[in-house]
Amino acid sequence: MTETLTPENRERLKTVSAATLTTALFKRGLSNTFIQNVQRLSPTGGNMVGEAYTLRYIPAREDVDLLEGFTDPEHPQRKAVENCPAGHVLVIDSRKDARAASAGGILVTRLMKRGVAGIVTDGGLRDAPEIAGLEIPAYHQRPSAPTNLTLHHACDIDVPIGCGDVPVYPRDIVVGDPEGVVVIPAHMANEVAEEAFEMTAFEDFVTEEVRKGATTVGLYPATKDETRVKYAAWRKANAR
Amino acid sequence: MTETLTPENRERLKTVSAATLTTALFKRGLSNTFIQNVQRLSPTGGNMVGEAYTLRYIPAREDVDLLEGFTDPEHPQRKAVENCPAGHVLVIDSRKDARAASAGGILVTRLMKRGVAGIVTDGGLRDAPEIAGLEIPAYHQRPSAPTNLTLHHACDIDVPIGCGDVPVYPRDIVVGDPEGVVVIPAHMANEVAEEAFEMTAFEDFVTEEVRKGATTVGLYPATKDETRVKYAAWRKANAR
Amino acid sequence: MTETLTPENRERLKTVSAATLTTALFKRGLSNTFIQNVQRLSPTGGNMVGEAYTLRYIPAREDVDLLEGFTDPEHPQRKAVENCPAGHVLVIDSRKDARAASAGGILVTRLMKRGVAGIVTDGGLRDAPEIAGLEIPAYHQRPSAPTNLTLHHACDIDVPIGCGDVPVYPRDIVVGDPEGVVVIPAHMANEVAEEAFEMTAFEDFVTEEVRKGATTVGLYPATKDETRVKYAAWRKANAR
Amino acid sequence: MTETLTPENRERLKTVSAATLTTALFKRGLSNTFIQNVQRLSPTGGNMVGEAYTLRYIPAREDVDLLEGFTDPEHPQRKAVENCPAGHVLVIDSRKDARAASAGGILVTRLMKRGVAGIVTDGGLRDAPEIAGLEIPAYHQRPSAPTNLTLHHACDIDVPIGCGDVPVYPRDIVVGDPEGVVVIPAHMANEVAEEAFEMTAFEDFVTEEVRKGATTVGLYPATKDETRVKYAAWRKANAR
Amino acid sequence: MTETLTPENRERLKTVSAATLTTALFKRGLSNTFIQNVQRLSPTGGNMVGEAYTLRYIPAREDVDLLEGFTDPEHPQRKAVENCPAGHVLVIDSRKDARAASAGGILVTRLMKRGVAGIVTDGGLRDAPEIAGLEIPAYHQRPSAPTNLTLHHACDIDVPIGCGDVPVYPRDIVVGDPEGVVVIPAHMANEVAEEAFEMTAFEDFVTEEVRKGATTVGLYPATKDETRVKYAAWRKANAR
Amino acid sequence: MTETLTPENRERLKTVSAATLTTALFKRGLSNTFIQNVQRLSPTGGNMVGEAYTLRYIPAREDVDLLEGFTDPEHPQRKAVENCPAGHVLVIDSRKDARAASAGGILVTRLMKRGVAGIVTDGGLRDAPEIAGLEIPAYHQRPSAPTNLTLHHACDIDVPIGCGDVPVYPRDIVVGDPEGVVVIPAHMANEVAEEAFEMTAFEDFVTEEVRKGATTVGLYPATKDETRVKYAAWRKANAR
Repeated sequence: MTETLTPENRERLKTVSAATLTTALFKRGLSNTFIQNVQRLSPTGGNMVGEAYTLRYIPAREDVDLLEGFTDPEHPQRKAVENCPAGHVLVIDSRKDARAASAGGILVTRLMKRGVAGIVTDGGLRDAPEIAGLEIPAYHQRPSAPTNLTLHHACDIDVPIGCGDVPVYPRDIVVGDPEGVVVIPAHMANEVAEEAFEMTAFEDFVTEEVRKGATTVGLYPATKDETRVKYAAWRKANAR
Repeated sequence: MTETLTPENRERLKTVSAATLTTALFKRGLSNTFIQNVQRLSPTGGNMVGEAYTLRYIPAREDVDLLEGFTDPEHPQRKAVENCPAGHVLVIDSRKDARAASAGGILVTRLMKRGVAGIVTDGGLRDAPEIAGLEIPAYHQRPSAPTNLTLHHACDIDVPIGCGDVPVYPRDIVVGDPEGVVVIPAHMANEVAEEAFEMTAFEDFVTEEVRKGATTVGLYPATKDETRVKYAAWRKANAR
Repeated sequence: MTETLTPENRERLKTVSAATLTTALFKRGLSNTFIQNVQRLSPTGGNMVGEAYTLRYIPAREDVDLLEGFTDPEHPQRKAVENCPAGHVLVIDSRKDARAASAGGILVTRLMKRGVAGIVTDGGLRDAPEIAGLEIPAYHQRPSAPTNLTLHHACDIDVPIGCGDVPVYPRDIVVGDPEGVVVIPAHMANEVAEEAFEMTAFEDFVTEEVRKGATTVGLYPATKDETRVKYAAWRKANAR
Repeated sequence: MTETLTPENRERLKTVSAATLTTALFKRGLSNTFIQNVQRLSPTGGNMVGEAYTLRYIPAREDVDLLEGFTDPEHPQRKAVENCPAGHVLVIDSRKDARAASAGGILVTRLMKRGVAGIVTDGGLRDAPEIAGLEIPAYHQRPSAPTNLTLHHACDIDVPIGCGDVPVYPRDIVVGDPEGVVVIPAHMANEVAEEAFEMTAFEDFVTEEVRKGATTVGLYPATKDETRVKYAAWRKANAR
Repeated sequence: MTETLTPENRERLKTVSAATLTTALFKRGLSNTFIQNVQRLSPTGGNMVGEAYTLRYIPAREDVDLLEGFTDPEHPQRKAVENCPAGHVLVIDSRKDARAASAGGILVTRLMKRGVAGIVTDGGLRDAPEIAGLEIPAYHQRPSAPTNLTLHHACDIDVPIGCGDVPVYPRDIVVGDPEGVVVIPAHMANEVAEEAFEMTAFEDFVTEEVRKGATTVGLYPATKDETRVKYAAWRKANAR
Repeated sequence: MTETLTPENRERLKTVSAATLTTALFKRGLSNTFIQNVQRLSPTGGNMVGEAYTLRYIPAREDVDLLEGFTDPEHPQRKAVENCPAGHVLVIDSRKDARAASAGGILVTRLMKRGVAGIVTDGGLRDAPEIAGLEIPAYHQRPSAPTNLTLHHACDIDVPIGCGDVPVYPRDIVVGDPEGVVVIPAHMANEVAEEAFEMTAFEDFVTEEVRKGATTVGLYPATKDETRVKYAAWRKANAR
C-alpha cells in the first residue's frame, strides 16, 4: 500500500512551489495541507523535501521536566535528533505554542550534520539567528529563547501528529519552499509530484505571457484553444 | 512506583473544591494543573473523581476521516467509549479546537451506562443540551454540533496528552467540581487528597468567621495564635 | 433553480437537532455549516426555522456613523428590522466582533411582533437579559451593551454574508436549536430535512437502546442485521 | 473639579441599563466605556453602583510570589479587600488573563460583609459557584480555580488601571447590570445619570408601543410629532 | 460631493508617512484609519497611492467554490483583477483570515502590468516570495499557499468593505508606506494631503534638531517661540 | 539588598544569548523571563544591556487623551523619554496592544542621543522603518502608525509593569539579542551573568564539536568524562 517516492519525483518536488502543491492536493479533495503560521528562518535556498519523522510534545510538568532529563540519551527530543533518518524532515507538534523553544542551535546543527532534510515546528526555535545561517531549512512560528522544559514535554517519536493544524503521518512527504510547508500524504506523493511539475510548466508559461501584457481571460485557466496551441509551442521551444 | 488512590481519599476528593486542590498542588511545586477554558454542562451534582483514560485527536484528513470509519469497532473514538474503565474519566485532547464535536449524546450516554466517572474535552460536545441532562459530569469548551470527522481524527488511546494546556498522564487523578477540572499526578494523589481535605475544614471555618464579620487579617492565613485556638475548638465542636 | 421548502419539511426541521443536520450536510460534502461561537440567549423553546434575510456591517467611521443616522428610515439596520419577512431569520454579519451591539431589545421586540422567526449575529446583542425573555429565538456571541455606532456601520441588506465563519446566502434555510445554528443551502433544504428526520428516528432508537444498556458496537452505526431488524420493529411500534 | 455623585443620581443609576449608559456616554464623545468580556456570576439582583477602587496585578515571579506573602497584612490584594471603602466597587486589572484567579470566595465574602458594592475583574474568580450565591454583584471573565500566585502579582492599590480594555480611574462611577459593567468618568457622572434616567423613561414608552405593534419608524428615534405628543401623555399617565 | 484628489496632492501623498497621515486624520476626529496587521511584501520602494477598488470575500462553500469557477470571466476575483482601474489600489476584504490565499503571483503580475497602484488584503497572498520581487506594492498578513477556494468565495466588487478592521469605501484614497496602509476618506483627501505635507516638513526639522542633540521639550510640539523662529528659518534655508 | 551589576558582568551580558540567559534563570527557578512576541527592528548590532526604566500605559479616553496633552512637559511619555537615565532600557507596558504606537521615530532618536541603551514595548512603534536604521536597539510587536492617543494613555513612570507577559521591576537588568529580550531580576543579575558567560563557553565548544560531526549523546549535556577532559583542553587552547 505504501508507495515510495521515486528519485525523479523527489527531484521534481525540489522545483515546484508550495502554492502549486496545495492546488494539486485540492484537486484530490484535500484542502488542509499547508502548515499554518510557520515561516522559514532563512528565506534563501532551495526547497526542503523529505519524509516526515515526527516528535510530539505535551505540556510540561514541573516534577517531570527537569534539566537533568537531558542527560538521558532516551530523552525523546534528543533521541529524535539522533535518530531522524537522513533525508527525512523532523516535524514537531508543539501545540502551536511558541512561548518556549521546540529546539535550538546545537540540535539543529546536529540534524544538519546527520543529513536530515529540514526541521519544522509549529512552536518556536531558540538561537534562531544562528539557525538562520545554517545550511538546513528550518521553519517555525517565531523565535523563542526559553528552554523547552518550561512549557513542553517531549513525549513520543514517529507517531501521527498535528502541526500547524495539519495532520502529519510518519512518512508523508513534506515539502517546504520560501513561502511555507506542504504535507503530501505518502500514498499520493508520486502523482502529486508529477502533476505539480506539469502545472509549474504551465504557470511559467502563463507568467511569461502576463509579463508580456496578456490578459488572464482565456489564458489562466486556458479556456481558449489559442492558449493551448501557444503553450504547446512554448513547451517545445523551452524543452519543458 | 505507581500508587493507588485509597477509597478514603477518593471519597475525600468528592468533598473538596478544584480551587483548594490547585493550592495543594502549588505547594508541591505544580502550578499548571487546572484545565483551562472548559465548563461543566450541568452545573449541579457532586464532584467527578476518577483515573484519567485518554483519547488523542489530531487534525482530520478528507481521505482518511470518512463516515464509514465508524463501522469499524476499532475506531479509536468508539473503542475509547467502550473500553474506558468504570470509575475512570475519559479525557480528550481536541487541541482546544471546538469547531467540531469531540463526542455526542449517544456516546456520553454509553459512558454513563458503563459507569464511567465523567468526560472532559478541551473541544466541544454535540447534543450538549441532552448531555447536560445526563447523570454523568461532562466538561467542554462550548457546544459544537458538527461531527468530529470534519476536524478531528481519533488517533490514540491511553497515551499522555495535553488537555486545556495541562499535561494528563493515564491514571492521573482527575477531579471536577462545578468550577472546573484539576489533574493530580498519580504519585501524589493520596497526599494531595489528604491535605486538601484538611484545608477544606480550615476554609469552612474561615468562611464562617468572615460571614460573622471577622477581618481576614490574622485569620486567613492564620497568623494569630487566637485564630489557631479558635479553629481547634471549631473542629472539635463540628467534628471535622 | 431555487427550490421552496415544503411546509412538511419546515415542520420536520422543527424536530431535528443541529447536530443531526450537520451530519446530513457532511454526507453531501459540506463540512462548514454550523455558525461558530454563538449561543442562544434563552435556552428553552423550540427550534428556530426560517429563510435567511441578511444584514451586513462593516467597521464604523466617526464622520459617517452618528446617532442622527437612526432618524433616517432608510438606515439599513432599521430597514432590515422593518423589512425582514415574517417567517425569515435575520442573520447579521458583525465580523465576529462583539465589542459593540448588533441590535438591542426594542428592535428584537419589533422583529418578534412582525413574526420574524429569529435573529442571529456573530457579534453581540445589547439588552440581552430582556431579549432572553422574549418569545423569539436569538443567538449571539456574548452580551454587548455599546450602541452599534461605536464599531459597526450597517451597510447592506440581503446580500451573501459570512456569519460565524459560515457562508449565508439569502433564502438559505437557517435552523437553530438550543445548541446552535445550522445553515442549509436552499437547493438542498428539502432533501436534508427529510434525511435528518429519518436520522432522528434512528438516533432516538439508538438512544433508547443505549439507555437500556446496549453496546454501541454494531448498533451505531447499524452494522449488525439484528440492529436493523430491531429498528424496523421499533419504528412500527412507535409509529415513526 | 471632582464632583460627587448625588444620592438621587446614585439611585437613578440603580434603575438604568448598561446599554442606555453607553449611549449617554457616546453622546459625550466616549465610545469605550463598557468593560469587555466579563459576565455577572449571579444574573439576578439589582444594579451594582459605586465608586471605583482599584487593584493592579502584574505577572507573577516565582521568587516573589510565594504563599507566605499572604501572611503580610500589607499584601496589596488583602489590603485592597480590607480597605476598599463601603459603597465602592473593587475593580481589578488582571491583564485580561483568567488562567489564575483574581480573588476567591472568602475574600469576596469579606467584601460583601464590609459593605462593598461589588467586584469586577477582567480575569477569573475562584470558588465561582459559591460567589454566585453571595449577595454582592461579582463580574469576571470565567471561573478560574488556580491561586493568583501562579500568574498574578498584586502590585498597586487605587491607581488608574485598564480593565477589560476600558480605562478606570479611582472614583469613576462603576455601574453593573445583568448585561455587564459601564465605567462613567467621575466628572460627568451626575449628568449621565440624569440623561440615562430620562432616556430610560422614553425607552420604556417605546417598548410598550412596539409590544402593541407599532413600527419603529418615527418612534425610535422620535422623529414624528405624533410620537412626542403620545410620549408626553404617557409620562403624565405613568408619572415618569 | 465627491472630491477629486488633485495631481499635486497625489504627489504629496507619495512623500509623507502613514504615521503622519494617521495624525492628520486623528485631528479630524478619525481614529481608526490604519489597516491592522498587514505588512508590505517588499519593504523597499516608494509610497503606494491610489483610489480604493474593492473585492469582498465571504466564506467558501464546497458545492459553490470549485476550480471550474475560474473558467468564468465573470468570476469576481478575476474580474476585479482585469477591471481595477489603473492608478487604483485593489483592497480585499478577506475577513482577516490568512489560512488561504486572497490572490497569487500571476494575478498580481497582471495588476502590475495593468498599471494598478497596489494590492492590499487582510488575508494572505500566495507566491509571496515572487510577489515581493514585483514592481507593485503588495500588503498582506502573511504568506499563504492554499488556493482561495479552500476558504474564500469571491462575492462582490467595488462595495464598501472592512479591511484589517478599517472601513474602506470605493474611491477612498489608500496610501501605503513601508510601515503600512492608511485609508483616507475621499471627501477629506486633499486637505489631509496638504496638512500631512506641512507636518512632514516640521517633523523633518524636528528630527534634524534632535539628531543635533536638542531636547524634545518645547520643540515637539513647538511650544517655544524660539522653535517657531528657528523652524521658519529652516524652511527658508531648505526651500520647504 | 539591591545589588549593582558590575562593569565586568555588564560586558559579559553583551556576549551571551537570550537563550542561554533563560536557561541560567530556569536553573534558579524562574521560567517566565523572556518577553513574549516582540522582535528587534534592526536584526543586526550587538546586545542591548541596561537597567529597566518603565512606562505604563492604560487604555485611552477621548476627553483625557488629546493632542494638546503633548505640550505639557510632564506628559509621562515625553517625560520618560527625557528622563530615562543613560545606559538604561525604556520598557513600556502597552498591554500587548499594537493597534496604536507606543512611541515613534523622533522620540526614539532622542533616546538614542541621550545614551539610553534601548527601548522595548509589547505594543508597536510608529516610523518603524526609520527606527530600524537608528543606532539604538528597539523591540516591538509590529509596526503601528497611529498616534498613541487613539488607544494608549501614558500613566506612570518607573513602576513595576508587565511587558509581553513578563514582570519587569525598575532596575531589573534587561538584555536583548537578535532573538529577543530577557529580564533578569536585579538581585541575581551578577550571578546569572557569570553563569551564562561560563555556559556560553561550553556551548561554543559543543557547537564546534557538533560541526565536526560529534553526536550530542554524552556531549550535550556533558555526561561523559571524555567530554569534560576535551572541554578543559579546548578552554585552555582558546583562552576561554
